[in-house]
Amino acid sequence: MADLPPSHPFDDDKLKEECGVFGVVGIADAANFVALGLHALQHRGQEAGGIVTYDAEEGFNSARRFGYVRDNFTKASLMETLPGSLSIGHVRYSTAGSKGNTAIRDVQPFFGEFSMGGAAIAHNGNITNADALRRELIERGSIFQSSSDSECIIHLMARSLQKNIPERMKDALRRVEGAFSVVAMTRTKLIGVRDPMGVRPLVLGKVGDHGWALSSETCALDIIGAEFIREIEPGEMVVITEEGGLESFHPFERRPSRFCIFEHVYFSRPDSIQGGQSVYETRRQIGVELAKESPVEADLVCPVPDSGTPAAIGFSQESGIPYAMGIIRNQYMGRTFIEPTEQIRNMGVRLKLNVNRALIEGKRVILVDDSVVRGTTSRKIKDMILDAGAKEVHFRIASPPTAWPCFYGVDTPEREKLLASQMTPEEMAGYLGVNSLKFISLDGLYRAVGEKNGRNPKAPSYCDACFSGEYPVAPSDMIEKGFELKAAE
Amino acid sequence: MADLPPSHPFDDDKLKEECGVFGVVGIADAANFVALGLHALQHRGQEAGGIVTYDAEEGFNSARRFGYVRDNFTKASLMETLPGSLSIGHVRYSTAGSKGNTAIRDVQPFFGEFSMGGAAIAHNGNITNADALRRELIERGSIFQSSSDSECIIHLMARSLQKNIPERMKDALRRVEGAFSVVAMTRTKLIGVRDPMGVRPLVLGKVGDHGWALSSETCALDIIGAEFIREIEPGEMVVITEEGGLESFHPFERRPSRFCIFEHVYFSRPDSIQGGQSVYETRRQIGVELAKESPVEADLVCPVPDSGTPAAIGFSQESGIPYAMGIIRNQYMGRTFIEPTEQIRNMGVRLKLNVNRALIEGKRVILVDDSVVRGTTSRKIKDMILDAGAKEVHFRIASPPTAWPCFYGVDTPEREKLLASQMTPEEMAGYLGVNSLKFISLDGLYRAVGEKNGRNPKAPSYCDACFSGEYPVAPSDMIEKGFELKAAE
Amino acid sequence: MADLPPSHPFDDDKLKEECGVFGVVGIADAANFVALGLHALQHRGQEAGGIVTYDAEEGFNSARRFGYVRDNFTKASLMETLPGSLSIGHVRYSTAGSKGNTAIRDVQPFFGEFSMGGAAIAHNGNITNADALRRELIERGSIFQSSSDSECIIHLMARSLQKNIPERMKDALRRVEGAFSVVAMTRTKLIGVRDPMGVRPLVLGKVGDHGWALSSETCALDIIGAEFIREIEPGEMVVITEEGGLESFHPFERRPSRFCIFEHVYFSRPDSIQGGQSVYETRRQIGVELAKESPVEADLVCPVPDSGTPAAIGFSQESGIPYAMGIIRNQYMGRTFIEPTEQIRNMGVRLKLNVNRALIEGKRVILVDDSVVRGTTSRKIKDMILDAGAKEVHFRIASPPTAWPCFYGVDTPEREKLLASQMTPEEMAGYLGVNSLKFISLDGLYRAVGEKNGRNPKAPSYCDACFSGEYPVAPSDMIEKGFELKAAE
Amino acid sequence: MADLPPSHPFDDDKLKEECGVFGVVGIADAANFVALGLHALQHRGQEAGGIVTYDAEEGFNSARRFGYVRDNFTKASLMETLPGSLSIGHVRYSTAGSKGNTAIRDVQPFFGEFSMGGAAIAHNGNITNADALRRELIERGSIFQSSSDSECIIHLMARSLQKNIPERMKDALRRVEGAFSVVAMTRTKLIGVRDPMGVRPLVLGKVGDHGWALSSETCALDIIGAEFIREIEPGEMVVITEEGGLESFHPFERRPSRFCIFEHVYFSRPDSIQGGQSVYETRRQIGVELAKESPVEADLVCPVPDSGTPAAIGFSQESGIPYAMGIIRNQYMGRTFIEPTEQIRNMGVRLKLNVNRALIEGKRVILVDDSVVRGTTSRKIKDMILDAGAKEVHFRIASPPTAWPCFYGVDTPEREKLLASQMTPEEMAGYLGVNSLKFISLDGLYRAVGEKNGRNPKAPSYCDACFSGEYPVAPSDMIEKGFELKAAE
Repeated sequence: MADLPPSHPFDDDKLKEECGVFGVVGIADAANFVALGLHALQHRGQEAGGIVTYDAEEGFNSARRFGYVRDNFTKASLMETLPGSLSIGHVRYSTAGSKGNTAIRDVQPFFGEFSMGGAAIAHNGNITNADALRRELIERGSIFQSSSDSECIIHLMARSLQKNIPERMKDALRRVEGAFSVVAMTRTKLIGVRDPMGVRPLVLGKVGDHGWALSSETCALDIIGAEFIREIEPGEMVVITEEGGLESFHPFERRPSRFCIFEHVYFSRPDSIQGGQSVYETRRQIGVELAKESPVEADLVCPVPDSGTPAAIGFSQESGIPYAMGIIRNQYMGRTFIEPTEQIRNMGVRLKLNVNRALIEGKRVILVDDSVVRGTTSRKIKDMILDAGAKEVHFRIASPPTAWPCFYGVDTPEREKLLASQMTPEEMAGYLGVNSLKFISLDGLYRAVGEKNGRNPKAPSYCDACFSGEYPVAPSDMIEKGFELKAAE
Repeated sequence: MADLPPSHPFDDDKLKEECGVFGVVGIADAANFVALGLHALQHRGQEAGGIVTYDAEEGFNSARRFGYVRDNFTKASLMETLPGSLSIGHVRYSTAGSKGNTAIRDVQPFFGEFSMGGAAIAHNGNITNADALRRELIERGSIFQSSSDSECIIHLMARSLQKNIPERMKDALRRVEGAFSVVAMTRTKLIGVRDPMGVRPLVLGKVGDHGWALSSETCALDIIGAEFIREIEPGEMVVITEEGGLESFHPFERRPSRFCIFEHVYFSRPDSIQGGQSVYETRRQIGVELAKESPVEADLVCPVPDSGTPAAIGFSQESGIPYAMGIIRNQYMGRTFIEPTEQIRNMGVRLKLNVNRALIEGKRVILVDDSVVRGTTSRKIKDMILDAGAKEVHFRIASPPTAWPCFYGVDTPEREKLLASQMTPEEMAGYLGVNSLKFISLDGLYRAVGEKNGRNPKAPSYCDACFSGEYPVAPSDMIEKGFELKAAE
Repeated sequence: MADLPPSHPFDDDKLKEECGVFGVVGIADAANFVALGLHALQHRGQEAGGIVTYDAEEGFNSARRFGYVRDNFTKASLMETLPGSLSIGHVRYSTAGSKGNTAIRDVQPFFGEFSMGGAAIAHNGNITNADALRRELIERGSIFQSSSDSECIIHLMARSLQKNIPERMKDALRRVEGAFSVVAMTRTKLIGVRDPMGVRPLVLGKVGDHGWALSSETCALDIIGAEFIREIEPGEMVVITEEGGLESFHPFERRPSRFCIFEHVYFSRPDSIQGGQSVYETRRQIGVELAKESPVEADLVCPVPDSGTPAAIGFSQESGIPYAMGIIRNQYMGRTFIEPTEQIRNMGVRLKLNVNRALIEGKRVILVDDSVVRGTTSRKIKDMILDAGAKEVHFRIASPPTAWPCFYGVDTPEREKLLASQMTPEEMAGYLGVNSLKFISLDGLYRAVGEKNGRNPKAPSYCDACFSGEYPVAPSDMIEKGFELKAAE
Repeated sequence: MADLPPSHPFDDDKLKEECGVFGVVGIADAANFVALGLHALQHRGQEAGGIVTYDAEEGFNSARRFGYVRDNFTKASLMETLPGSLSIGHVRYSTAGSKGNTAIRDVQPFFGEFSMGGAAIAHNGNITNADALRRELIERGSIFQSSSDSECIIHLMARSLQKNIPERMKDALRRVEGAFSVVAMTRTKLIGVRDPMGVRPLVLGKVGDHGWALSSETCALDIIGAEFIREIEPGEMVVITEEGGLESFHPFERRPSRFCIFEHVYFSRPDSIQGGQSVYETRRQIGVELAKESPVEADLVCPVPDSGTPAAIGFSQESGIPYAMGIIRNQYMGRTFIEPTEQIRNMGVRLKLNVNRALIEGKRVILVDDSVVRGTTSRKIKDMILDAGAKEVHFRIASPPTAWPCFYGVDTPEREKLLASQMTPEEMAGYLGVNSLKFISLDGLYRAVGEKNGRNPKAPSYCDACFSGEYPVAPSDMIEKGFELKAAE
């Protein structure tokens, strides 16, 4: 697996959620439900997945695999090795820096055997003081098995003096800075925790009469027929037992909530509900706001498939300009190539997208995309559209300029590779060679997510660090490595 | 590979094009271009693919593989074994009757060594007198290596008394009944032929200054940057040499053209041009016609993804009812599962589609789909929509009732399994449990493809046997096996 | 599999039997027995194997695989696809000229569908007029699927005017020159044939009360618990039905028998019986003759493992010099490496053999080997022995100098690469750098196989062309390609 | 790999060495040499292997694989990922109790990152207080990743307060009871240690001018062309740096040496030198002693291949009865079957061995084998010999009755499954159904290894617990689990 390339060249041009987590308790053959849930969360991490189960007779069992959930965790021969009515799982995306050589030992859930029994954890987010914690733990004799920041949690738990696992978990997470939505399990308990700011999502569902589910998104509750109950609150820990039901704790100091606004823009699936709102409807509303903020005369509104679609629909509805599928996506495009020919390597986005030439020719086209990261894909798409004979190309972007890296569980290029950190929107339009390029304003984005008055600059209600450079938790490891925060204004 | 299941349970509920063909001449590393072309044609056949090349030094080389083009024919190590500037390729779908045990020997192109040199052929379509031809050839000492009808062509060529391969090919194809678009190659020639009625498509493109391409669809010309020149005419054979350019022949008796109208409805990619028309635009126009023929009051028009999308856009534009993505498709859904658990087997369509609950709840929803075959998927989708709280569900179908099997290269269930062969549209609405169900009329469909006056019943300009039961060529093998043609009215 | 290298570098230094054949009738789950038989015949061909079965309900089934029998034909999932009580199989070695790019289509048994039903054949030997036959068949419209000489037989059968398969087989084999032991099957019959000279072996066994087996060697009868009945005679065809028992025919003109003497020297397994004699005992007797013909003072007699062992035992017993395992073979050495490092490539024989240093040091050592082909391995072994401190090294070879290629089903280097075609034995001793090198005489070899008076030069009773250059059937294809027969003396 | 069966049914009937270790320093591309060394040590462990390297630029790299060394560690693509001039490796056999579900995480070398840098260790032997150590370490917060006893060493090292790795290793190994030959590495040092009794072997070699090697056996020095220097002494630790040469320490309290006598009987390769003696010659001498102790009139002396061969040669030489290969081993027999058919499962030893029927018929046969464990294979071999028509069968066994399990790194059945723990030799002869069965005496065995006066019962110079029940180190974990030591006499 050392030779697995990270992804398509042109997928480098999206921010990537690094993980999805899912867990169930109180359902026979729980691993099957976890597999289905992870399949529904596959967009949050495509590199690898893992499932742990507990069964009174068979004990803990675990399977971790590279590749899609559907290619691994659908096989009867594998699923038979994962018995029990309590199970958690994780899907992951390889981080930017790992040069594609992730080992299977980096794939979660992580497991630890403690004196009072075993526990497994699956973590979505990023621990911003992981390097410091790791140094301290090694100094004291812990042996790390992975390069993952998440492994710190399990070692901190192993060294806690508390007598039961939920208490050890509280101990451990109090030492941890950054963003975390954690799903964990012991022999009898399913546990869910969200960091005090609630940066990453985590929702609770009910399965049948006795079962419970925890998931990164509600779309994964849908697939298993679970009822969406509520979100886990920022800073909340829930401990669920098969018999005793659900207990809720708030082990951390209270802090203002800062949910990741990019979950609305791109990461979450459009059929999920986050923060009480339909992600699809929020995106459509972004398109409406964008059409109000940056109108332009044109013949067609076309989405860049597939993430630009809801905003394009909203833009079309607000502007009255017809919506059309000007770019067609190849359904048979997978995620990556093993050992590709030079020719394939150079094809880039054309392997995935084709312009609907007969539709575009001679037209003034508005292209709606979710974001611009490096700008490499945007340029190629513009070329394709012009080659097909479009008269004008106008980009409308459903997020503000992405000018700062995320340190809370999203894979972003280094700051200097973010186009918006190097250029103004006008310069970007010139660089991309389009007739116009407009981003939604930060206020417009907040309006689309339901804040009528736009963003409150004193106390913004979301984490929008990738747009604003305002990091709600100082990324201490990165600062030690030389990352410079935005100068106070 | 014997244990490869044919496809998803719920994919049984679509008609399936059985093949795509592609060939190029006059380009270095021709196989790479054929691989790209086949990737763009993957929707025409997902089970397996093959490529043959000729190189003056290395002779003929060939590779045939189960699975997607992108998983096989992108690898440098394989493509290096396919040198040369002349190459053809084929993608195939397994036919209904084969119980999934297709052998690699059934995968095209087929190759034959004749006394004047070798030739390879790739065939899209179906030979309706193949059984009779095979019996005759075996009687005379030919040894068949596959169960494919297409192999007859190569044996007929082997036994021709003509002195060169194009002439032998004419000899062979004059014996063949049914539908065929064939791409073939010798050591120096790329050959394309379409049957006299032109049932299946075949188009010609120019690559750079000296190269030529033949393809089932124009979208595959786009991916390699080829210019679309024209369609091969019904009954035409083109013979292209690297130096001498293109010669055109008409070896068959002239017959009226009868292009497959279902290519417009579903088979071809929306970004292709067939019969001089944009497939996407034709589908949108079907939606417009459908809204005129069968309007209904509702809150939302939603496509059944992805094939219903252009017609849904047209329906929305004509009716003024907002277009919305009420059903979300899982992007990580592959084609099939190997050895799935019972649970997975039973999930069916929910693995692939999820209802956008927050959008649908309390709404009157129009669902636009391309066709109804068995009706099994339509029922499941209706259930999902109602479970999500829709107030009304109205189906609008972008094709007339599919009541007859196709014998010209499309995988259809037996007649009695086609819902429309057993029920009227009204009965179908009751069976599916929807508030209304309307199909576009055959005349409406002809209007959408550009025939202002609808279908000419005396001389229809398309093959529409799957709707009308009027077979332009008698399916002789099937009749011998007991298939009953529609009684004359 | 195109990239499968033919074998170890140092295995090039042996002649290689190209095939083994096996068939059974009248036993439930016949394919299991064929698999066991082929496993016992694996030394006759390691590249690939195939099995065909017939079952009244399931018809003919077949599986062909690269690699060892034990790695393929032991799996329940594969064997379940091979039902029936009638089955034949084949193991094959890749021929010298094929550059390792054997396709699976070259793997036998070959199958043909005739108008009276199907038949499969498995062939051990080589057809010396195959090129001429192939040209003729192609001219008449046959399409070849493999590069194998054996495929001619099935095409000749397809074109025969006879009304049943055994008669068609006689027709076909009468056109064929060279060496052949063929095992074939129809829906009801197991058929065995040996060429008129009986160059390659074929034996008959009885399995239980009703079953029969045909095999290249008796060791494969042992493994399935079959009783060895007799050899199929040179020029005999046996036709065995499940009910009607065995019929014997002699369809060819009678010729003097010329069994391959190298089967005794090296090809056959020591636990087989060929020509009524124990192969092990014959080899031991060769050692005895060799000790009489070429004695030498020494401290130890060591076999070159494993083929030199029986002759070394005989040499020790005759000479009174102690037998010792001076060279140890690595049991975990497989047949080949995929994509090896440079270092591995250069290791050659040291990966397989190690000198028993403590035993050899300071000793005068007699090394007994079965043959010298190119001499490359012999040189390396001599080096290893001297490096370990041996005082003297004397080679004794259990066959005469191999100076001529075999055209009857054995893979031999071109004549000029055979060391014995370029040098006298004395020159060879110098070239190899050993203290002495002696071959058994041709007469000595005939005495060891039981001919008290040695070889009858007028009418030798074995094929010994590789030693004598006297080819019992003119190799017509090779002569056409320029091979020069030995000048008459 | 979870479904890999432990081995053949009939291989259960041998004791199994559990590991081999190898390391080199001071040679470019060290991993290639380690791979060759491990290939030569493959008989010590066939389930899996691993290699770790260190390179100044690339840091530590590691690869662990199930299967043979030759199938994994010969591939250029893998070996390229293992750069550096310092490397260690390990081959392992799955232990009896693991039910075949060894995970890759159990495969050594184990690696730990300490505050002063990383270290890897490879362990041959067994830690008899591993359970107690593991409990203590978990209590204090260590997280175990494997089920291996050897992992304790790395955790003990992690918790040591010493400032450098060799000192931490001494600390750790002083806590460990049982048998261990350990090869370890840091970024700059190759380290070898043997437990105070020297139960398992470890030898030192010189490679070229600057390189050093450590190996379980000398045969692995031979394959890389290294010069055998000396054994690592019982209780010695050597620390070798690329520049500074070799330092020797004796960190443990001195104890009398107790090398495993079964290494001479069976485990070590015959071409190795252990304790200053040729293993082959020792085995031959056991045959000589056996012939003196337990002579019998017979026609042939046959080894049970391959382990009985040297003793059979010795028996023949002493008795004057001719040596013969009465049982032939199939060279193409691998180690195990994946998902075998019922028929294959039942074949057992016949897949591997065949009787040389023509040789055996009517003869009185002496069979020489190395040991009798459960007796299951011996019975089958006797059946095969009698079926082939032998008149008498006499077993002579080259070791005393194996009546006690080994706890020092050898896989043995539970005591009650050892035939010799349940029966006297006479009863065993009856149970096996042979004419006679004789074991060498314990004194005879000691004489064969060079102790002229046989075993000194007061202070035996070898570990012979499997024969005598006298365990030089109390197996404390096993005693805690209820194992009963031999009652004092």
